[in-house]
Amino acid sequence: MITHTVFFTLKHAEGSVEEQNFFNAARQLANIPGVQHFSCLKQISTKNKFAFGLSMEFSSQALYADYTNHPDHTHFVQQYWADNVSDFMEIDYVLL
Amino acid sequence: MITHTVFFTLKHAEGSVEEQNFFNAARQLANIPGVQHFSCLKQISTKNKFAFGLSMEFSSQALYADYTNHPDHTHFVQQYWADNVSDFMEIDYVLL
Repeated sequence: MITHTVFFTLKHAEGSVEEQNFFNAARQLANIPGVQHFSCLKQISTKNKFAFGLSMEFSSQALYADYTNHPDHTHFVQQYWADNVSDFMEIDYVLL
Repeated sequence: MITHTVFFTLKHAEGSVEEQNFFNAARQLANIPGVQHFSCLKQISTKNKFAFGLSMEFSSQALYADYTNHPDHTHFVQQYWADNVSDFMEIDYVLL
């Protein structure tokens, strides 16, 4: 199982309508085939600069690639990610 | 539920005895009271600089604090973390 995560900050004030709209759109990513255990996260450590995260799991690299290339994902990236996210870092992992 | 993660690189070659010794010691952290779902992780994204991760969950901030202050944790930090880890970032999160 591959866990794909991304941690990020938004350009908007905490609790803003823009933040709510962003997460409403992000939650639709859970419907893309192959996505398992999708979660929207609040990052709470003071030891990094990120405020939020998204986490999901894929049972294979092929399904992860299908998700990356899925039109609903690329639409989200173009319509929401680019306009709303000010900084981010992706972290993917498997059990050691 | 609070998920505590740390992603890091080691000073040692991949597959080295030092790497194995480090993870053997790290896995003992799972025995500290309050630690749930402890995992050692291999970080696989090319979009960040980290090679490994540790992940665990706590049911409260109080149990997380107890873990941080537990002598087995502080011993691990002093005896293994400082000598073996070259770079790291902690990320903690809850469901949004």
